[in-house]
Amino acid sequence: MKKIRAAIVGYGNIGRFALEALEAAPDFEVAGIVRRNTENKPAELASYPVVKHIGELQNVDVAILATPTRSVEVYAKEILAMGINTVDSFDIHTGIVDLRRSLSEVAKQHGTVSIISAGWDPGSDSVVRTLMQSLAPKGVTYTNFGPGMSMGHSVCCKAIEGVKDALSMTIPVGTGIHRRMVYVEVEEGYDFEQIAKAIKSDPYFINDETHVKQVDCVDELKDMGHGVNLVRKGVSGKTQNQMFEFDMRINNPALTAQVLVNVARASMKQQPGCYTMIEIPVIDLLSGDPEELIAHLV
Amino acid sequence: MKKIRAAIVGYGNIGRFALEALEAAPDFEVAGIVRRNTENKPAELASYPVVKHIGELQNVDVAILATPTRSVEVYAKEILAMGINTVDSFDIHTGIVDLRRSLSEVAKQHGTVSIISAGWDPGSDSVVRTLMQSLAPKGVTYTNFGPGMSMGHSVCCKAIEGVKDALSMTIPVGTGIHRRMVYVEVEEGYDFEQIAKAIKSDPYFINDETHVKQVDCVDELKDMGHGVNLVRKGVSGKTQNQMFEFDMRINNPALTAQVLVNVARASMKQQPGCYTMIEIPVIDLLSGDPEELIAHLV
Repeated sequence: MKKIRAAIVGYGNIGRFALEALEAAPDFEVAGIVRRNTENKPAELASYPVVKHIGELQNVDVAILATPTRSVEVYAKEILAMGINTVDSFDIHTGIVDLRRSLSEVAKQHGTVSIISAGWDPGSDSVVRTLMQSLAPKGVTYTNFGPGMSMGHSVCCKAIEGVKDALSMTIPVGTGIHRRMVYVEVEEGYDFEQIAKAIKSDPYFINDETHVKQVDCVDELKDMGHGVNLVRKGVSGKTQNQMFEFDMRINNPALTAQVLVNVARASMKQQPGCYTMIEIPVIDLLSGDPEELIAHLV
Repeated sequence: MKKIRAAIVGYGNIGRFALEALEAAPDFEVAGIVRRNTENKPAELASYPVVKHIGELQNVDVAILATPTRSVEVYAKEILAMGINTVDSFDIHTGIVDLRRSLSEVAKQHGTVSIISAGWDPGSDSVVRTLMQSLAPKGVTYTNFGPGMSMGHSVCCKAIEGVKDALSMTIPVGTGIHRRMVYVEVEEGYDFEQIAKAIKSDPYFINDETHVKQVDCVDELKDMGHGVNLVRKGVSGKTQNQMFEFDMRINNPALTAQVLVNVARASMKQQPGCYTMIEIPVIDLLSGDPEELIAHLV
């Protein structure tokens, strides 16, 4: 069986876990890693080409964009135009429709496939939300995140003057409402109470119940575990009170990376264009013979 | 917007709930109901054609087969050959691959689409199982059913001599193991202990913890509520202990009927052939503008 040759673009947290997921997948081959720093190869990259530009790698079928969300569009456009599929976990919910339009055009022009916003939320949660909505078309779905670290909220805190390091934990309190537990390390000469006030009045926090605590070392509190709880109560046909719930407790970057590898596989089976995960059949996320998968999973 | 014209074939429990789901759907029109008994129309059918053969109905796009599982193949082949899509909730897990092959041939020949085994299990549960397996490719999934009535087990009990009526409840005890609580009404002149022994030694029950109770009226115990709990613990990439859980408490025929209507809609968007639910994108289960659905659900 010919293996799918995947390149990893960006080698931060997600990139590292994507490498593990590719190595664990029976149907993939690592074509190489694209990163700014090509010196000082970490040990796990010893046997792979590490290059500054994807054009230096051979026969790449699909590029896993493990880059910051804001640079996804630029990378994807360039790589799709080279005849290589792309996948990403673009996570700005309000920007997804526009990104899909813009990449769809490029992908169709070059006969390639892009699967966007493929992490866990947006991503696998989106598939569950869509399925739940179909099972009870009338009703309300709540997405409850956590407990787990919010990258966006933590970065926001770190930008405040006098904050040496910060961690914002998202705590679910039900019905889509979240408490923020913020832990800050304060620079010498700054007042903690002032900082706490600045955080609580920031647009990122002002609408949520927010508690700010001073700690000696933020790094000691960090763990990559996260979770989600999706709940829907609604109506199937004319029958009320149908209840659905999805729950997970996961290592955040490990799951994101696994989803990226799954959609990289699925990209090989779609017609040219750009897709979100709710637009591709779940069977395409898996390796193996379709009839055997149907026999085991349906 | 042109509405999808659906016929309901068979008017038992599922057929009745399918009518409600069609009436509640904004994009469907009821083309008519096919049943043996066309006399004595129940009130809710007053405004619809009720016929003995689907050929008597006008411009049918898709037929919802609400017939017993064993007659699905015969009906589907005939209707697909007439140029009409079919959907069913065929639920003999070991027969799904063969049914898919046989209907795929007929569907492709006649440019039609069939979506099979579309209820909640097999059906929407299959989508969740497939998604969970993709999120943690190594690991074990347990499907825990109930509490709820098992049709197959109840029918099995009713076939035993001396049983007037019977109800077999499936009780989940975790890790895919189920307890059977069987309630029987005994015919006069028969011995309850003998009947209980016969039930417990039947292949349907012999491997499960089974309790048989004698009751005066089985009908008084019947409720159509059911549930499922799907659990997977596994490995994403090389990261262990990823936990996923899906849970639902539902009216059984109402949910089956809603899924049938959803796949009837999805059948209009697939290429000719036969599909299980894991082979169709979840977005196709919903009505509405794709970009709006993506903006709200992804």
